[in-house]
Amino acid sequence: MIHDPRLHPSRVPGVRAVDLRHVTDRVRGDLAVVEFAEILPFQPRRCFWTYAIPDLQTRGRHAHRLCSQFLVCAHGRCRLHLDDGRQHEEWVLDRPDFGVLVPPMVWAEEHGHSPDSVLLVLASHPYDPDDYIRDYAEFLRHLDPAPTLPT
Amino acid sequence: MIHDPRLHPSRVPGVRAVDLRHVTDRVRGDLAVVEFAEILPFQPRRCFWTYAIPDLQTRGRHAHRLCSQFLVCAHGRCRLHLDDGRQHEEWVLDRPDFGVLVPPMVWAEEHGHSPDSVLLVLASHPYDPDDYIRDYAEFLRHLDPAPTLPT
Repeated sequence: MIHDPRLHPSRVPGVRAVDLRHVTDRVRGDLAVVEFAEILPFQPRRCFWTYAIPDLQTRGRHAHRLCSQFLVCAHGRCRLHLDDGRQHEEWVLDRPDFGVLVPPMVWAEEHGHSPDSVLLVLASHPYDPDDYIRDYAEFLRHLDPAPTLPT
Repeated sequence: MIHDPRLHPSRVPGVRAVDLRHVTDRVRGDLAVVEFAEILPFQPRRCFWTYAIPDLQTRGRHAHRLCSQFLVCAHGRCRLHLDDGRQHEEWVLDRPDFGVLVPPMVWAEEHGHSPDSVLLVLASHPYDPDDYIRDYAEFLRHLDPAPTLPT
């Protein structure tokens, strides 16, 4: 169940894509599951979901100092852009049985939302506005060692 | 944030309906959140979601011996039938910012799913097939004291 990196390699250290356990049943309907202790390196303390996102809107645009997150597009689709100041990559979240683990200190942006998208996020920490780094240059300065900004 | 029983009274003891904290933003899109320690009387250890449920299908049809669950229809709509052997009630889950807490030993059935429904469930325990009571007569026998079956 845990992500096979041969299937979903990530360029950003600490990022992990996971094919979730799921049951497909044409008669009863489908189900996907996250058993926290099996899948996640943290115990979630918060869960939120975004919806009704206008299609040209970008959400996220921040990094967390401490909070880890696990993201699944449970309905519809969107794209997830990740960047640790050295490597960047884009994930397409378009299956309710596919999730991406984003560790702290990775810059994340979500965009390309379909009108019906529901992006579900399991977070390791309660909401704390001080945990957010919303300025990209500040994010780079917090990395150790700080990468060189392009000139 | 916590359920005001004047707004959402429940006939089934232990069942609690919760208007979730949410942010409505026409430009950036909407967000609803469950801060576990604020909202839930348990620490979730599992999260699952059901989808692509045929509209005449009923899911659930069981009680849990130990597991508590918190249910939110994060997209679309469905109906939730609850029954503790004495009282029964039906909830319409049609808002991504409204959830219902279902304690152990309450019989639950979900039906009337819209084709686009995503029913999100936060569960207090990992999956355990022995925690399910799938026979209604057996469920009634497990209640203390057992109610009398209609003759």
